[in-house]
Amino acid sequence: MLVLGVDCGAQRTGYGVIESDGGGHQLIASGVIATRVKDPFEVRLHAIARGLREVIQRHAPAAAAVEQVFYAANVRTALKLAHVRGVALLAIAEAGLELGEYSPLEIKTSVVGYGQAGKRQVQAMVQSLLGLDSMIESEDACDALAVAICHATHAVMRDRLQGVPAR
Amino acid sequence: MLVLGVDCGAQRTGYGVIESDGGGHQLIASGVIATRVKDPFEVRLHAIARGLREVIQRHAPAAAAVEQVFYAANVRTALKLAHVRGVALLAIAEAGLELGEYSPLEIKTSVVGYGQAGKRQVQAMVQSLLGLDSMIESEDACDALAVAICHATHAVMRDRLQGVPAR
Repeated sequence: MLVLGVDCGAQRTGYGVIESDGGGHQLIASGVIATRVKDPFEVRLHAIARGLREVIQRHAPAAAAVEQVFYAANVRTALKLAHVRGVALLAIAEAGLELGEYSPLEIKTSVVGYGQAGKRQVQAMVQSLLGLDSMIESEDACDALAVAICHATHAVMRDRLQGVPAR
Repeated sequence: MLVLGVDCGAQRTGYGVIESDGGGHQLIASGVIATRVKDPFEVRLHAIARGLREVIQRHAPAAAAVEQVFYAANVRTALKLAHVRGVALLAIAEAGLELGEYSPLEIKTSVVGYGQAGKRQVQAMVQSLLGLDSMIESEDACDALAVAICHATHAVMRDRLQGVPAR
């Protein structure tokens, strides 16, 4: 299945598209939608929406995954991010994609194997899981790929466990 | 000038369109975009975006006004609202409308004359300023009309003061 991962940010929104059967993952595309700090916020939201729609149109993923909303120490930052996240969820809903939302803990556990992993460890594991010769340069794109990998892994588990009673 | 006011809410997003020369205001349209609580959040965001785009397309306002992001006591509520606000700002940017953002204090001062006014007082003044026989029933639509009136008043003042040195 083709999965789009999105790492929301007002300045830089990372995205990553992978093809995955849940066990093996392959990089299809990744990058960053950067916005100009001097532009009004609504213009930046528009740029992010345009960028995400372009990626969705080009790769036609079946599903999308986004990090869960978090309660950052800085409320102003969290609120700004929530605006961007609203725009990302809208682009995903408009395209009719299946949506998965995961906590940072779930993403790290899924990619690295434990929830306390650091940024560099996540990057190294994303590189390894995608079989890449070099690291994904952009941290934002890498985070987006991590949440995409997390979703692909979860989706396969969910499918396998369908019909299996919890106890 | 035609001004659209938007009062963001995950459950109910109010909107109001007025024709105004800054001094006199006339009601063109007002209403509420309601979403279904049982729908996934991204589907509700999509409904809000669709609703706002429809209003913008039907009335072709020149400007839009939205309440400034506020730091609600409840962080979860504020973050949810910020998602909706992101979608509203996007719809406004997509349509290329001039955008005004105002604090609750500015809105109340502009409509009622002082910043500590209560909900009912705002409603009564909106009714009076628009020359309506009866109150706007929906509080959300009324709040949207209030921010539209605030913008129309401010826009005219800005125009008049253009070129006048501050001191």
